[in-house]
Amino acid sequence: MASPATSPAPSEEDGAELEHDRLIADVFARACTSRGILEHVTGRWGTLALAALAEGPFRFNALRRKVDGVSEKMLAQTLQALERDGFVHREAEPTIPPRVEYSLTLSGRALAEKLRDLIEFVEAQVPDVTAARTRYDAAKARA
Amino acid sequence: MASPATSPAPSEEDGAELEHDRLIADVFARACTSRGILEHVTGRWGTLALAALAEGPFRFNALRRKVDGVSEKMLAQTLQALERDGFVHREAEPTIPPRVEYSLTLSGRALAEKLRDLIEFVEAQVPDVTAARTRYDAAKARA
Repeated sequence: MASPATSPAPSEEDGAELEHDRLIADVFARACTSRGILEHVTGRWGTLALAALAEGPFRFNALRRKVDGVSEKMLAQTLQALERDGFVHREAEPTIPPRVEYSLTLSGRALAEKLRDLIEFVEAQVPDVTAARTRYDAAKARA
Repeated sequence: MASPATSPAPSEEDGAELEHDRLIADVFARACTSRGILEHVTGRWGTLALAALAEGPFRFNALRRKVDGVSEKMLAQTLQALERDGFVHREAEPTIPPRVEYSLTLSGRALAEKLRDLIEFVEAQVPDVTAARTRYDAAKARA
């Protein structure tokens, strides 16, 4: 979360300090690569797909049933982005029709652990959040 | 991440087991409250707003500058959802114009810690992800 961002490229005169700074990612900067990665892994379906795959490999349709509510198109796009980023491995067996299985890579597993930690926290917050929403809505209604 | 979801409400005959099950949130179920909370905290701007507020309280415009690229409308919607969920506290001083400051609640701080952990992981992955994307695109170009 340090700044400056990885981009833009420094001029040659900027020397050693900027050479170092170029390697520092800053997710708050809209042009930084890390912002796009974060959006893939926390996007509407990325988090759930990664958390599901933390339980083991899935075939496409089984994963779609697990991630309740995702469309075929959105799941395909989500998995493709995560595969391109190196978090998901796609294995297609040369059968007819092809049997395709998705699993986590090493870095995908580390990432999914963090997401599951986050999800467990959120699930545990449900009673408190429900109470907070009731208080908030009541205060708004009085105002 | 257990199932079944917190909803729907069980009938009286369902007894003690369902009484217990009702308390278990399942983020994979589209109707579960936890799914909506997760979307607020991992949505396009929720993660960044919470991570920024982990550094300290912010006034609206300062927060908007920090979260590079967010529109006024989206930041306002994001903060309102997080306030309603009980993660963000909004303090308006009765001045003209009103001075409004946003900070994290106790549960917001716990949540933001997990998000910062996730962000630091993602930022550290930038070189590996960049390399993975290059390999993926090269393989696609050959196919």
